[in-house]
Amino acid sequence: MNAKDKITHAQVEELEFLLRKISAIIKRRGRDILTNFKITPPQFNALLVLRRHGDMTIGELGEQMYLACSTATDLVDRMERNGLVERVRDTNDRRVIRIHVLEKGEEILGEVMTARTDYLEEVLEHVSSNECQVMIQSMSLLYKMMTEEELA
Amino acid sequence: MNAKDKITHAQVEELEFLLRKISAIIKRRGRDILTNFKITPPQFNALLVLRRHGDMTIGELGEQMYLACSTATDLVDRMERNGLVERVRDTNDRRVIRIHVLEKGEEILGEVMTARTDYLEEVLEHVSSNECQVMIQSMSLLYKMMTEEELA
Repeated sequence: MNAKDKITHAQVEELEFLLRKISAIIKRRGRDILTNFKITPPQFNALLVLRRHGDMTIGELGEQMYLACSTATDLVDRMERNGLVERVRDTNDRRVIRIHVLEKGEEILGEVMTARTDYLEEVLEHVSSNECQVMIQSMSLLYKMMTEEELA
Repeated sequence: MNAKDKITHAQVEELEFLLRKISAIIKRRGRDILTNFKITPPQFNALLVLRRHGDMTIGELGEQMYLACSTATDLVDRMERNGLVERVRDTNDRRVIRIHVLEKGEEILGEVMTARTDYLEEVLEHVSSNECQVMIQSMSLLYKMMTEEELA
């Protein structure tokens, strides 16, 4: 990369602004959507993590969500009372207990995801498929770079 | 826009995924950065809002931040004790009290913003200026569409 290809400080500042604003709207809209589903943002995030990783111990779930062990335990207790998950004993090592998503949890997760994509579909109403593809490429690149930076 | 230019459901789902992931990383990194500055995420957000809008009443600040009045008052109390802001009486109408950012608040805000752009600069290390410009254009378009949808 030669000098004139180098990113300017103004570009970084502009991108920081846009990411901060877009993230704030996504967060606010995500919360609004959840109020229709009797599920809190941490409960929704826990369901997403469990769907991605499969059954996990409370320790593993808490680690993925950056929660203290007691907070993760409280969260799972509330989700269990809510009928979203259940505690399941490992058949090989009965000392190990894992969290398993129940049908009600899967259902709510599906409904929330549909509401989120419906919202985005509305936002993108006047955006062409090509423009959307450029967005996807740009954000894929950004996401890749962010993930690599996290691992570095 | 003709039919083949229409955004597909798969594109919307991919964009939802990317936005959710990128927002989560931005949030986590933002929190990590704040731990070095003795300031909480809501205090940082309040400083950002006050910088954009100038001195505001607690009611106006709470409205901008989607906080209940008692929560906004608690937040301002803690920020005042922290030396970040002060309460100032309106010179024309002494019943009106506004929140004013103090020098320490401005300083911390500046330092946090620098840390945030430093992080992003690191993320974008191997991205060319052109690629970054495409990111900015894509995200500007998305931000514009999101803002229009909020007003609709």
